[in-house]
Amino acid sequence: MKLSRYGDRYGSKIPCIIDADGTPRDASSIVADFGPRTLSPELLDKLRATDPKSLPVADIEGKRLAPPMAQPFNIWCVGLNYSDHAEEAGMEIPAEPILFNKSTVTYCGPNDNILYSPKMTKLDWEVELGIVIGKPTLNISKEEALDHVAGFVLVNDVSERAWQLERSGQWVKGKSFPNFCPTGPYMTTVDEIGDVQNLNMWLDVNGKRMQTGNTDKMIFDVATIVSYMSEFTQLEPGDLICTGTPPGVGAGMNPPVWLNIGDKVSLGIDGLGEQSQTVVAL
Amino acid sequence: MKLSRYGDRYGSKIPCIIDADGTPRDASSIVADFGPRTLSPELLDKLRATDPKSLPVADIEGKRLAPPMAQPFNIWCVGLNYSDHAEEAGMEIPAEPILFNKSTVTYCGPNDNILYSPKMTKLDWEVELGIVIGKPTLNISKEEALDHVAGFVLVNDVSERAWQLERSGQWVKGKSFPNFCPTGPYMTTVDEIGDVQNLNMWLDVNGKRMQTGNTDKMIFDVATIVSYMSEFTQLEPGDLICTGTPPGVGAGMNPPVWLNIGDKVSLGIDGLGEQSQTVVAL
Repeated sequence: MKLSRYGDRYGSKIPCIIDADGTPRDASSIVADFGPRTLSPELLDKLRATDPKSLPVADIEGKRLAPPMAQPFNIWCVGLNYSDHAEEAGMEIPAEPILFNKSTVTYCGPNDNILYSPKMTKLDWEVELGIVIGKPTLNISKEEALDHVAGFVLVNDVSERAWQLERSGQWVKGKSFPNFCPTGPYMTTVDEIGDVQNLNMWLDVNGKRMQTGNTDKMIFDVATIVSYMSEFTQLEPGDLICTGTPPGVGAGMNPPVWLNIGDKVSLGIDGLGEQSQTVVAL
Repeated sequence: MKLSRYGDRYGSKIPCIIDADGTPRDASSIVADFGPRTLSPELLDKLRATDPKSLPVADIEGKRLAPPMAQPFNIWCVGLNYSDHAEEAGMEIPAEPILFNKSTVTYCGPNDNILYSPKMTKLDWEVELGIVIGKPTLNISKEEALDHVAGFVLVNDVSERAWQLERSGQWVKGKSFPNFCPTGPYMTTVDEIGDVQNLNMWLDVNGKRMQTGNTDKMIFDVATIVSYMSEFTQLEPGDLICTGTPPGVGAGMNPPVWLNIGDKVSLGIDGLGEQSQTVVAL
C-alpha cells in the first residue's frame, strides 16, 4: 500500500491511498489525516482492508503534494551509514550508529523548493531511505523492529556543510534550516516494499548523476537501527529516521561541489518514487 | 504573568493564569490550551489584559502539574554555556554557541519521575534556564531577539553521560530518554522576570546542594542565543531552548557521582519556581 497527502503547508490535507493505476483516492472518510496522532497498526490494517477503487478519486487539481505523513514529533538521522561512502570519505566504519537530529521545521513536500539563505556557502544533498515508525518503540529487539515500522519514504537530507562542520560542535546546526527535509512523494508500507535492504537509489543535480547506491551497502540495517535507537529514546508513531546516504555528495567531490540558486535536484529510490527540488533565494 | 497547566500526560489540560496570591485561575474560557499551536504575542496580550481574579479558581484537586506549554515542536540545548562550568571542566570557552537537541519525548511535568532504564550507568542532572519562543524566528538581530521570546521556564536537562559521550558521536543520544526534560512549574513572561541575566539557580540531590549558579555567568546571553540560532533554523512558537548549566553536575565531581533509583532531585531558579523528581525504575 502507498499513502500520500495533498494540501498547503498549513491547513488541512487530503489523505490518499494510491490505487493500482497510480491514482490517489481520497481516504478522508476513513481518517482525517495520516500522522503522529493517528498512525497505528490498526489504522494501517483498516486502510489495507479498503478497496482503493471504492474511494472517490482525490480532488488534487492544482494542489501541492505534501509529505505523506503530518509533521513528525522528531526527525532522526543516522550518520555515515554506507560502507562505500565511508570508504570514499576515507573514514573508519563507525562501531555503532551515529545519531543526530534535524529540526522538524525542515519537514516539507517532496517537490518544495530548497531555500538558500544569504549566509549559506556549502549547500549539499543526500538521498536517503527514511523509516516511518508505526507504534511506540522502547527497548525492543532487532527481531521485533520491523513490526514497529509503518513504512518507508524517500528523503533528501539537505545539509549546509559549513554550518554542520565548521561552526562549533554538533551536526544539527547544519541540518535544520526550513525545507531541509523534502519527504515523499508517498509512504510505501513494509509489506509492499519487498527487501528493504536491496533498493537502488540515485540523485541528479541539473540532470547529472551524482549519487548512485543501494541499501545493501548500509552498515547498520533498518532493523538494527530501530532496535538500537530504542535503547536511548522512545520512538513515536510518525517519527522519521533518515538512514544515511551513499557516495556522491558535494562535499565528497574533488574539488567540492555546492548547490546554488537555480540548481535543480532530482532523486529516487526503488519503490519509493521520485522527488525534484529547485534551489531558490530565501 | 505566570502561566501553568494541569492534567495527565495524554488528554486535555487546564490552562491557568496564576493570580497574585499564587492561585491558578482557569483560563480555558480564553484559550483551549497554551502551546505551539496557540502561542502568539496576541494571545499573551489577551491573557495579560485579563484580571486573573475574574477567572474561576482552577479545579486542580488531585491533578498532575503538567509542563506550562503543550509539547514543543523542538527542544534545543546550548552546551557548555557557563564560564564557571567551563573553568571547572577545564574546557575552553566555545567561540560560538554549541547547539544540540533533545527528543520531544523527554518533555514532562516538573515533578514527574525520572525513569531509570536498566541500560543506564551514568545518569546526571543539569539545572537550566529555558527560553520559550513566542513567534516564528528566522534571521533576526540580537536587538529583536527578546520580542520573539514568550517567557522563561525552569528545566532539568537530565543526561545519561555514557550514552552522550562514550557511544559514538553526537550528544543527542544521551539526552533523549523519556522524561529527560522536566519543565515548569510555570512559565514567567519576559515582562515579569526582571533581569534574566541575573537569576540565582540551584540543584540538590537527596537534600545536598550540588549546583549553585547565576545566569550572569552565561557565555552567550539569551538575546545572543536566539539571534544566533535564527541563522541556522526557524524557531517556532513554543520551541524550548535550554541555555546550559552552571558548575556542579555529577560528571564534574571527583570521583563522579551518578543518580540511582530512589534518589531525589530538587532544583530552582529565581522567579521560575521549583521542581522535585524521584528516580524510579523504568
